[in-house]
Amino acid sequence: MAESEINKEFIIEVRQALLSRDSRFLNDRVSSLHPADIAEILDIVNMEEAKTIYRGLHEEKQADVLAELEEDVRERFLAALSPKEIAEQVDLLETDDAVDLLADLPERKQEQVIAQLEDKEHAEDIVQLLQFEEGTAGALMGTELVKVNVNWTVNTAVKSMRKQGEEVEDVYTVYVVGDDDTLKGALSFKRLFFSASSMQNMIADLYNDAPLETVTPGTSDEEVVSIMKKYDLVVIPVVDEANKLLGRITIDDVVDVMQEEAEKDYAMASGITEKVESDDSVWLLTRARLPWLLIGLVGGVLVAMVIAQYEHQLTVDPKMAFFIPLIAAMGGNVGVQSSAIVVQGLANQSIQMATMAGRLLKELGVGLVNGAICAGLILVFNMLTSDSMALSYTVSIALFAVIIFAGLFGTFTPLVLDRLKIDPALATGPFITTMNDIIGLLIYFYVGMLMYEMYPLT
Amino acid sequence: MAESEINKEFIIEVRQALLSRDSRFLNDRVSSLHPADIAEILDIVNMEEAKTIYRGLHEEKQADVLAELEEDVRERFLAALSPKEIAEQVDLLETDDAVDLLADLPERKQEQVIAQLEDKEHAEDIVQLLQFEEGTAGALMGTELVKVNVNWTVNTAVKSMRKQGEEVEDVYTVYVVGDDDTLKGALSFKRLFFSASSMQNMIADLYNDAPLETVTPGTSDEEVVSIMKKYDLVVIPVVDEANKLLGRITIDDVVDVMQEEAEKDYAMASGITEKVESDDSVWLLTRARLPWLLIGLVGGVLVAMVIAQYEHQLTVDPKMAFFIPLIAAMGGNVGVQSSAIVVQGLANQSIQMATMAGRLLKELGVGLVNGAICAGLILVFNMLTSDSMALSYTVSIALFAVIIFAGLFGTFTPLVLDRLKIDPALATGPFITTMNDIIGLLIYFYVGMLMYEMYPLT
Repeated sequence: MAESEINKEFIIEVRQALLSRDSRFLNDRVSSLHPADIAEILDIVNMEEAKTIYRGLHEEKQADVLAELEEDVRERFLAALSPKEIAEQVDLLETDDAVDLLADLPERKQEQVIAQLEDKEHAEDIVQLLQFEEGTAGALMGTELVKVNVNWTVNTAVKSMRKQGEEVEDVYTVYVVGDDDTLKGALSFKRLFFSASSMQNMIADLYNDAPLETVTPGTSDEEVVSIMKKYDLVVIPVVDEANKLLGRITIDDVVDVMQEEAEKDYAMASGITEKVESDDSVWLLTRARLPWLLIGLVGGVLVAMVIAQYEHQLTVDPKMAFFIPLIAAMGGNVGVQSSAIVVQGLANQSIQMATMAGRLLKELGVGLVNGAICAGLILVFNMLTSDSMALSYTVSIALFAVIIFAGLFGTFTPLVLDRLKIDPALATGPFITTMNDIIGLLIYFYVGMLMYEMYPLT
Repeated sequence: MAESEINKEFIIEVRQALLSRDSRFLNDRVSSLHPADIAEILDIVNMEEAKTIYRGLHEEKQADVLAELEEDVRERFLAALSPKEIAEQVDLLETDDAVDLLADLPERKQEQVIAQLEDKEHAEDIVQLLQFEEGTAGALMGTELVKVNVNWTVNTAVKSMRKQGEEVEDVYTVYVVGDDDTLKGALSFKRLFFSASSMQNMIADLYNDAPLETVTPGTSDEEVVSIMKKYDLVVIPVVDEANKLLGRITIDDVVDVMQEEAEKDYAMASGITEKVESDDSVWLLTRARLPWLLIGLVGGVLVAMVIAQYEHQLTVDPKMAFFIPLIAAMGGNVGVQSSAIVVQGLANQSIQMATMAGRLLKELGVGLVNGAICAGLILVFNMLTSDSMALSYTVSIALFAVIIFAGLFGTFTPLVLDRLKIDPALATGPFITTMNDIIGLLIYFYVGMLMYEMYPLT
């Protein structure tokens, strides 16, 4: 078993079973799968097929599948279900999954669903969680956790833990709280279980009172990721300012956030403005890609206007046009490289220590070396293949200057954006490339003007 | 407490304490920190300072800090330690961390360290693990786990678990194995603990025999990530072909792999060939960036040669040079966008289902829409600002063609690379950009030739 079996052949079998109403196949081979596998199937088949499969599932599994579906498919699913039906599912989900699901609904339907929830305590927790802003620890956390009072005996604690354990799918840590629910520390499961402690012992004597890493509901999810990653945590408690225990965030949600962050940065660097997948519609793909193309278009027009200023130079030597793409591309490449290194460093928080001046100085060093190598190579090439001293010098001098400038600009821009609290990843991609095209070609033609005066064509 | 305190001010305090040999500050404020925090400090201060701090730590903590250090700092650290000293640390580490550390050593020193290990069983496990290839589940796994025999009573199992638990830092799951160590299933910690089962019960009656998700040592780490992410696992068992339990992989290692993958893709898309950080040396940064610049340089020369073929066209109308960067940049942008979507999709394994023809057809659709919009806008602009019909038509027709071509090329290339088992991320970045520059300008000048024949300048 073990390996995922959702391949093309299996999907074809599923579709045939649906066509021939082969409910035995569906029960034995589909409904028994892990909810994540079923969700993967529903993501692939069409809506009618998906609904048929979904209806054949047990209620508990329906809820889990719903939680695992991709957002666009889930939205269409939810649209087809009545508030009552959704409420039945939400009752079965842990609060963090429930909130994820409800957040996809239009406000009115959301309220209707909440009104229909049977477990009133669950409903209250959900309403609380819905108020936290997207992108914060509050929106990631669930209220399901196991906690014991520091003043209890082991006996009382164990009884309570058994009861609480029924509600919580994965118990990673037992939290120890005071009478006012303030977080005191943790009770290691291992220790409680492995140490043959008497049932009359006090929790106070047994638990680990070292301060735990915690976050508050307002902590950004990037910060949550960074803390859990740094300290290798599988779960982190969420407390309010008074250190009252509110909930916990588990590693699976953090893994999802990490992936979304990585995809967002990658998309932004590639000039895609919305989260798209290759199986999205042509319309969605177009919409995600058009904005940067329009920016590129405006940039291209600006560049054309810059070159137009030097039209005379092109009549002096049309060969100057040959190296326009080289200058533009090299500026773009260097700019993207240096901005990517800064953006990555800011994301890892590994570059808080150095000063901006220090970083620019280092970039200057890199630019001098790379610039000298590239300019030297192209000079040799041009000397060998061209008889125009002016053109050879122009290309090399301009290239050298452009590599240095683009590196400094690519380093500087994301740092400044970061200080202005704008996402520095915006700096990579088409924006830096276009700016470097403009500045690069200004340098190129200016140097050209000087060189052709010094070394006129014979 | 909770929040990380490693900021600039704290580093200054640490350095002052080192200078004034303030051992109380170092003991109270530094040595007591989490190993991950101490490692962060050692990554920042200079080597001499780092060694002084390190020497002041307890042995157990030294090992943990060593495991957390960044690779370049750790290499320098290990170079300064004798094989005997390293062996003492390795003895204290879990096998997966131990292997990570040993893999950084030169082969000869590695052997010396292993020979000096005191715990011979530990050493054997480590030697085994060292044989697995980088990038596989074998290289990620640790042999520390808690397992019980299916034929044991709860009483025997619990005794054994207590003993095993001493060796394993985080026990997430208790594995149930047969006499030949084959994996039978898992014993839920929660169930064992929360159900008041009699000590005389058999494990066979208590454990969950549903097949577990497993991987083999040869499974690629991308696959491990994808399985653990999909099924929200915090730990996954590693078995051999005969289903014999070999070890387990925990989520913290998988989180590290995810981050490395994301950074690698991002770097590759940005034209950086090695993993670098902004605080690396100028030399390292230069070396990581030069290869793509040289490729870009060769590309630029090729483009220059392409344009040279149309030098005559530039004498007919030098204004044709104005739009060279626009055509090149738009081709590059579209190519990067479409290849990024494919690369991302391949990484998520979300695009196994569609055929190549289907994907290209969709890309054609996107290209037609985006191409028509961009070409239309630039046509209006040129009609308003230029009196040359030939130039206006040339730019718009070429732009339309380039957007469609670049989209198809950017989709096609990573898909082909993937089938050839070459990392498709190679396709993004400078390679696609350069190719699209060349093809784009060939189209531009060819269209120009035709247009200037049809609409000669008056």
